[in-house]
Amino acid sequence: MFGLIGKMRAQPGKRGDLIAILLDGTAAMPGCRAYIVAEDAEEDDAIWITEVWDSAESHAASLKLPAVQAAIAKGRPLIAGFDSQVKTRVIGGAGL
Amino acid sequence: MFGLIGKMRAQPGKRGDLIAILLDGTAAMPGCRAYIVAEDAEEDDAIWITEVWDSAESHAASLKLPAVQAAIAKGRPLIAGFDSQVKTRVIGGAGL
Repeated sequence: MFGLIGKMRAQPGKRGDLIAILLDGTAAMPGCRAYIVAEDAEEDDAIWITEVWDSAESHAASLKLPAVQAAIAKGRPLIAGFDSQVKTRVIGGAGL
Repeated sequence: MFGLIGKMRAQPGKRGDLIAILLDGTAAMPGCRAYIVAEDAEEDDAIWITEVWDSAESHAASLKLPAVQAAIAKGRPLIAGFDSQVKTRVIGGAGL
């Protein structure tokens, strides 16, 4: 399985709104085993997104979904930056 | 929900064995919503563990479980180091 672990920063005070947009647009994505959105517990504006997909292709295809495109467009003004993104090979674990 | 995103490094050539130990010991942990183990796609010995718990207390309690303690003891010689660990407040997402 294909995984992504990414950290982004919201504009000051906009993390809650950005997270709501992210969750709204990513509810039903074919091949998505996990798309988990979390607040960094120590950095006020930082958001972590951890994803598991059945393949890199499923992930790539998701970026063309209308709901995802709408979320990207709606969320972009609230994004201050992308700090990191790691690609992984997901081996397994509880909750998948 | 309480989340953790951690990166560790296995001893050279031991990543597969370490991941097997991690997965074996973490199959049934009360309060665990996700415990996902992945290989870093670019760093040969790096392992990412992304966790979601219903509370920090559930996570703390899990460290006392016999299966987890056994996995820690068995895995420790195969660990070369812990690179990072981030605490998060998990808001939601697909696959939880």
